[in-house]
Amino acid sequence: MKTEKLLLIPGPTMIPEKILNAMNTQAVGHRTEYFENIIKEVTIKLKKVFRTERDVYILTSSGSGAMEASVANFINEGDKTLVLVNGKFGERFASLNKVYGADLNEIIYPLGVPVNPDDVESFLEKNPETKAVFMQQNETSSTILNNVKAIAAVVKKYDALLIVDSVSGLGVTEMKMDEWGIDVIAAGSQKAFMLPPGLAFVAVSEKAEKKLSSCGNKRYYFCLKAAKKNLEKSTTPYTPATSLIRGLDTSLDMILEYGIEKNYEKQEKYTKMLREAFKTIGLSMVVENDQAASRAVTGVYVPEGVKWSEFERILSEKYNVLVAGGQDELKGKIFRVGTIGYLGDLDILSGIAAIEMALFESGYIFELGNGVSAAQKILIGRGKN
Amino acid sequence: MKTEKLLLIPGPTMIPEKILNAMNTQAVGHRTEYFENIIKEVTIKLKKVFRTERDVYILTSSGSGAMEASVANFINEGDKTLVLVNGKFGERFASLNKVYGADLNEIIYPLGVPVNPDDVESFLEKNPETKAVFMQQNETSSTILNNVKAIAAVVKKYDALLIVDSVSGLGVTEMKMDEWGIDVIAAGSQKAFMLPPGLAFVAVSEKAEKKLSSCGNKRYYFCLKAAKKNLEKSTTPYTPATSLIRGLDTSLDMILEYGIEKNYEKQEKYTKMLREAFKTIGLSMVVENDQAASRAVTGVYVPEGVKWSEFERILSEKYNVLVAGGQDELKGKIFRVGTIGYLGDLDILSGIAAIEMALFESGYIFELGNGVSAAQKILIGRGKN
Repeated sequence: MKTEKLLLIPGPTMIPEKILNAMNTQAVGHRTEYFENIIKEVTIKLKKVFRTERDVYILTSSGSGAMEASVANFINEGDKTLVLVNGKFGERFASLNKVYGADLNEIIYPLGVPVNPDDVESFLEKNPETKAVFMQQNETSSTILNNVKAIAAVVKKYDALLIVDSVSGLGVTEMKMDEWGIDVIAAGSQKAFMLPPGLAFVAVSEKAEKKLSSCGNKRYYFCLKAAKKNLEKSTTPYTPATSLIRGLDTSLDMILEYGIEKNYEKQEKYTKMLREAFKTIGLSMVVENDQAASRAVTGVYVPEGVKWSEFERILSEKYNVLVAGGQDELKGKIFRVGTIGYLGDLDILSGIAAIEMALFESGYIFELGNGVSAAQKILIGRGKN
Repeated sequence: MKTEKLLLIPGPTMIPEKILNAMNTQAVGHRTEYFENIIKEVTIKLKKVFRTERDVYILTSSGSGAMEASVANFINEGDKTLVLVNGKFGERFASLNKVYGADLNEIIYPLGVPVNPDDVESFLEKNPETKAVFMQQNETSSTILNNVKAIAAVVKKYDALLIVDSVSGLGVTEMKMDEWGIDVIAAGSQKAFMLPPGLAFVAVSEKAEKKLSSCGNKRYYFCLKAAKKNLEKSTTPYTPATSLIRGLDTSLDMILEYGIEKNYEKQEKYTKMLREAFKTIGLSMVVENDQAASRAVTGVYVPEGVKWSEFERILSEKYNVLVAGGQDELKGKIFRVGTIGYLGDLDILSGIAAIEMALFESGYIFELGNGVSAAQKILIGRGKN
């Protein structure tokens, strides 16, 4: 009878009943005091998640819209930029830099390797005129966690802005915008915020805001100057996704009540459970270094002899669990298990159990239950450190 | 006890329970066969509302995003364009043309006056190299209905594309994209579709699609070439607003079951009810000509002696009815009553009753009930023609 899918993908994520109910209400006028108060409240709470005193703009778009905004509003034709690439979303930042006419430089890392802050240092030393450095905190496609704090410590010695895509990182992994000195952060609703897709966020530092005013690029819908002017009146330049913003209000209450730090720990625990489980049953991890492993999504190589499409079909149809495959050239080679959104300890355990069975049934032979057992030990505090 | 607002604004509009329920479901993976089937179904149904056999792209943005897409993808630096302006959204098309570097020409009409097709003819005769003509079907700010059919008949004799913002027109007033020869139509979710804001649509003719491929403008998120490539696989380039798309599926079922033609008639009837009611109690209409009056929103001058803010406060706080004010230089001078979304005959009647009382209480003295009575006569088929 139960056919609801357990989403262990890196977004959209499972949504709590409370948030569904908050969105399940009649329409509201967006140009009303009532809705302006919601925008005001939501903005105050968002700042707590971004750890910033600066403006956070709400866009009605997917996360890629926030990525475009964080390029279009800060980069002018011919500006030298550095894009740090360790996956598909890094490539997207590079494409966006090309679209907006940047003098683009890229440092491209092999699969599974995080950004090395020393590479950034030596690039900026040689190219102090660089206008901006772009990176992902969490590169969803290759399941890497980059060390934003260490890179920020390097970039802040130079004029360049540090622009971070944290669409799948914010709320999942520690992020201290003001303290670390990050200039622009892009985020989205369908990850740690446990909402459906449709909202994106951009936070802008004082240093970045000054560049904003001199930006002469082609943009309209994603113009952050318009967003800023409107936010001063607790509104948005264009009709916002009102139902999602009501959901966001509830989401932020839940996140702040649970505790951001506590949530970081939870995400780390779930990641450890998955990694120990998969290693125990003999699978290879896309990211070998535990410290550089994403806390939003865990990447695993599809074992030899197993066909991804067969494994995915069994997992989805027989066990109602969705995981993500590899994208583009990684299709069929890796699979990715999300740990974000509204998930509890037992969801992770039953996800591991289902993945075990689907792997077994698609031809990978091992002792069933060993992965689950390794994860259980971590849950009761007796796992490996 | 009842404090729910009756939304008589030109969007967001009231949402039927059925659509709320369709959206009130757990998250789904957007890269799944299940969701691809929804996109496929929804696209087939959307085409029936646009009256087109051509592609209709779904964007996750507000209607202004669709407006930007319908400029950015068809206009190159230096292209001669004509923008027909009879309100704020016409001005938005003009701004977008400037942002994208068009050689912009405008025909600007006084308040309350629709576009005259003869003006378009004489412009195109003198400027046959014009690349595109931009217009609103329904100009929400000044409550005007432009005659798209007549203008299309003119434009199709020339090379220019006809690009129509029908964000608040589609589903409200007759629109036959293929038959009339319209090249691009932009629309949004929070108007006739009875959905919350957050989705926008762009339909593209064969003639326009050919120009699409040669478009060299700066755009990424709103790139329709990417949308086209993805729609072939029943998907979207970026994570779509999945919950709103599920609502859209239900909305389209409701619209098609009720009948598009029948809905046009309903919208015309509601507009007539409002206009007769307001005229009967001595108010002046922003658009004098009944034929050129929007069927989505009716504009009325605030009578002398009445303060808009006072009238609005009483209407909203005492009677729980929201209408819209004038925008920018029209603020305080006109008010606008929406007739779109999930509204029944009695909602219009009670809206009129509430407006009567709020006007009376803010100092406009007349025989209460006369407006309601005029509208009742139309409802039972005994009104003026």
